[in-house]
Amino acid sequence: LGVETTASQIRLYELVFDDGRSSSPYVWRIRYALARKGLPFESVPLGFTQIPAVFKGRFKTVPVIEHGDRMMAESWDIAEYLDRAFPDRPPIFSGPAENAMVRLFDAWFVRDLFKKTFSVYALDIYNAARPDDRPYFRESRERWLKGTTLEAFTASRESRLPGVRDALAPLRSHLERNAFLGGNTPNYADFIALGAFHWVACMQTLPMLAKNDDVLRGWLDRSFAFYPEVTRGFNASTLFES
Amino acid sequence: LGVETTASQIRLYELVFDDGRSSSPYVWRIRYALARKGLPFESVPLGFTQIPAVFKGRFKTVPVIEHGDRMMAESWDIAEYLDRAFPDRPPIFSGPAENAMVRLFDAWFVRDLFKKTFSVYALDIYNAARPDDRPYFRESRERWLKGTTLEAFTASRESRLPGVRDALAPLRSHLERNAFLGGNTPNYADFIALGAFHWVACMQTLPMLAKNDDVLRGWLDRSFAFYPEVTRGFNASTLFES
Repeated sequence: LGVETTASQIRLYELVFDDGRSSSPYVWRIRYALARKGLPFESVPLGFTQIPAVFKGRFKTVPVIEHGDRMMAESWDIAEYLDRAFPDRPPIFSGPAENAMVRLFDAWFVRDLFKKTFSVYALDIYNAARPDDRPYFRESRERWLKGTTLEAFTASRESRLPGVRDALAPLRSHLERNAFLGGNTPNYADFIALGAFHWVACMQTLPMLAKNDDVLRGWLDRSFAFYPEVTRGFNASTLFES
Repeated sequence: LGVETTASQIRLYELVFDDGRSSSPYVWRIRYALARKGLPFESVPLGFTQIPAVFKGRFKTVPVIEHGDRMMAESWDIAEYLDRAFPDRPPIFSGPAENAMVRLFDAWFVRDLFKKTFSVYALDIYNAARPDDRPYFRESRERWLKGTTLEAFTASRESRLPGVRDALAPLRSHLERNAFLGGNTPNYADFIALGAFHWVACMQTLPMLAKNDDVLRGWLDRSFAFYPEVTRGFNASTLFES
């Protein structure tokens, strides 16, 4: 009972799109991590422009969790904290070797796939954001793009889609031999990859994946079935060309 | 004593260049794996064109190990076999989660880096091969290249070097926070990556890495110092522009 009381005190601060769905791939990792540990939580939805005021400058990014009198940001720190704080629940990481390997996967996945994904969906993210957040999103991202508008940046986005799909080839070849990236059961590498697909599914106006991409389709369906409490309302089919 | 007798019966069949050095990145993985387990072995050096006759068609690729009356190919099968056959020695894999994650790293690394590396070093591999092996290597690889000669394929290889170096960026960002890919100690992911660098070091006529690539230099030096019995005669400096 004591544990459940403690668990129920978790709050997850997340960034949301205008339709209320969580918009950060990093927040999605923590939604899966909390499900893995069987921890209920209260969601605190925020827009980009509310973050500075809500955290009074202490945190610049979400996810942020609040647990008792502790608040912390950074998805990796949060995931490791959940294992320390709830050692009697199913572990997110089996040990330091798995942790190091998932971090290596993350280094590759974020660098390669996030960059390519943004180059296709930058304008979709803008359009899906809360109206109040759009000016901030445009201004900050167009600064990254050295003045190129989101519209100009994504004008020939169809031509970049094969690059996004090709970047997923290592996932496909791994999933031809394994039910999940983590092997027989999903692990934090699955949560990282699933987070990216949730992010895209929440804002895409151009399907990320080809109709015949069966290996990824099977994995998404298995993962969504494994964590129904995270994926309620999601259907993998929206990510695929019809 | 019984264990040592058994261990001493291991033979490693490997592909070698004309100078006698092991030329397969997959064999290097097993050289490291045997060192991790502290297992001595007898090397059986082969050229490409000797493989069919020596194995009577049973195996088409090296590494092959012989242990007692058992012979097996495929580096992943061999590594897992060593953990099963020598459970009292240091494990290569801490468990299935680490194993799955290293396989995912392998899927990315081989697909991305091996392809790019071959596009720079195809002719160097040919020139480093035993003279008897060169016609086979040229003929089989030029068939992969749909008739393009090795010379034409590598004519503008300098222009591909930035792509090879950039593909290593996830390793760099991971190694900025970790001594080894495996975290505090090398694991099979390190062996996979080290194998690729040994392969290149044995045949390159164009340094693979830039002078200022300090993060990879530190990791190579640490790894070579960790396994002196594997890396004897190697100096990481040959991989870097002077």
